[in-house]
Amino acid sequence: MSQRPDPDQPPASGTGARRPPDPSRRNARSRAAILGASLQLVGEVGYARLTIEAIAARAGVGKQTIYRWWPSKAAVLLDAFTENGGEPGAEPAIPDTGDLAADLRAVLRATADEFSDPAFEAPYRALAIAGAQDADLSREFDARLAGGGIEVYITRLRAARDAGQLREDVDLRLAAEMLTGPFFQRWLARRGPLDHDFTDALVDTVLAGLRPRG
Amino acid sequence: MSQRPDPDQPPASGTGARRPPDPSRRNARSRAAILGASLQLVGEVGYARLTIEAIAARAGVGKQTIYRWWPSKAAVLLDAFTENGGEPGAEPAIPDTGDLAADLRAVLRATADEFSDPAFEAPYRALAIAGAQDADLSREFDARLAGGGIEVYITRLRAARDAGQLREDVDLRLAAEMLTGPFFQRWLARRGPLDHDFTDALVDTVLAGLRPRG
Repeated sequence: MSQRPDPDQPPASGTGARRPPDPSRRNARSRAAILGASLQLVGEVGYARLTIEAIAARAGVGKQTIYRWWPSKAAVLLDAFTENGGEPGAEPAIPDTGDLAADLRAVLRATADEFSDPAFEAPYRALAIAGAQDADLSREFDARLAGGGIEVYITRLRAARDAGQLREDVDLRLAAEMLTGPFFQRWLARRGPLDHDFTDALVDTVLAGLRPRG
Repeated sequence: MSQRPDPDQPPASGTGARRPPDPSRRNARSRAAILGASLQLVGEVGYARLTIEAIAARAGVGKQTIYRWWPSKAAVLLDAFTENGGEPGAEPAIPDTGDLAADLRAVLRATADEFSDPAFEAPYRALAIAGAQDADLSREFDARLAGGGIEVYITRLRAARDAGQLREDVDLRLAAEMLTGPFFQRWLARRGPLDHDFTDALVDTVLAGLRPRG
């Protein structure tokens, strides 16, 4: 519990320090090692058995280094997942080619492919589990998901509605939840395969209920 | 770790033993106390902080008694939830009045009411979290949910399809997932209120996509 001269926060990037040993650079290396170790380990042992001790051992740092920077294993994973390329296919927005069905089919197919990749799936599952237990973490996870959150669906659906492709009175948030909720449930509760047949049928059936009436 | 003469399994009910002290009855009392304590505690501290030790202390038993009967806290909760009235409103089937929309609205309104009750919500959330981490537990949870699983929706939708109220080519499983998935996601990820406006709109929008085409 002794006070240490290290800064409370690791540097976001190198900021012009010259002389070795450079504590900023050392901290950046430690931080990257910790984040990488957390992603590896959660894929190996799952979230329930993931410990700060194991992350520290894998990263080659003391566990106090981790506790100085993060309050919990969930917080480590959140940074690791959102900063370390944990979302390879995510885009800040759903493309708008003018063909809503094609655009939604493409994004949900890409999402299904992502969730079939254990390197992506394991930390995402861990964060979903952590979020289910911690409302604050859940909100932060949603806020930091570039393209993974529900807002990108709402934005794309709004454009389609404004173009007359959906009913004027469509509930955009509900429609977005109808696209993401069945996928989320099938994935998290392992209710069936996350394949393109599923995502295509989901898009088509949801849109069938949102088209302008005859 | 000493061998004890107690049976491995607690009795399901009293089976005619006469003389006090009756080990069957004592076991049944302990079992009920453990199940009740697990439901109380998960509501108080959440799943992550729930421990076998705390359940044992609250139930007034030794923790070895719990470990003799259950392999994990999740297994205790599963029995507690499915045997101890954890599903007050659940029915083995969705009523069939002939009006599919009315029947689905009623069952989803009742489900929303259940999930607004912390005594129901906390153990259900714990089991959803445990199931997300353990595929076997997830399957067992689904299998033991009288009325909570997806099959009751499929059965009701099939009857409507056979009555000509839905398209002949409707994907019944997908339709059931469209009714339950958005609810599950909104609840587990705390994405919005689980009120009757939400469930009614969900039913109506899903069914709009499943009706026979003009």
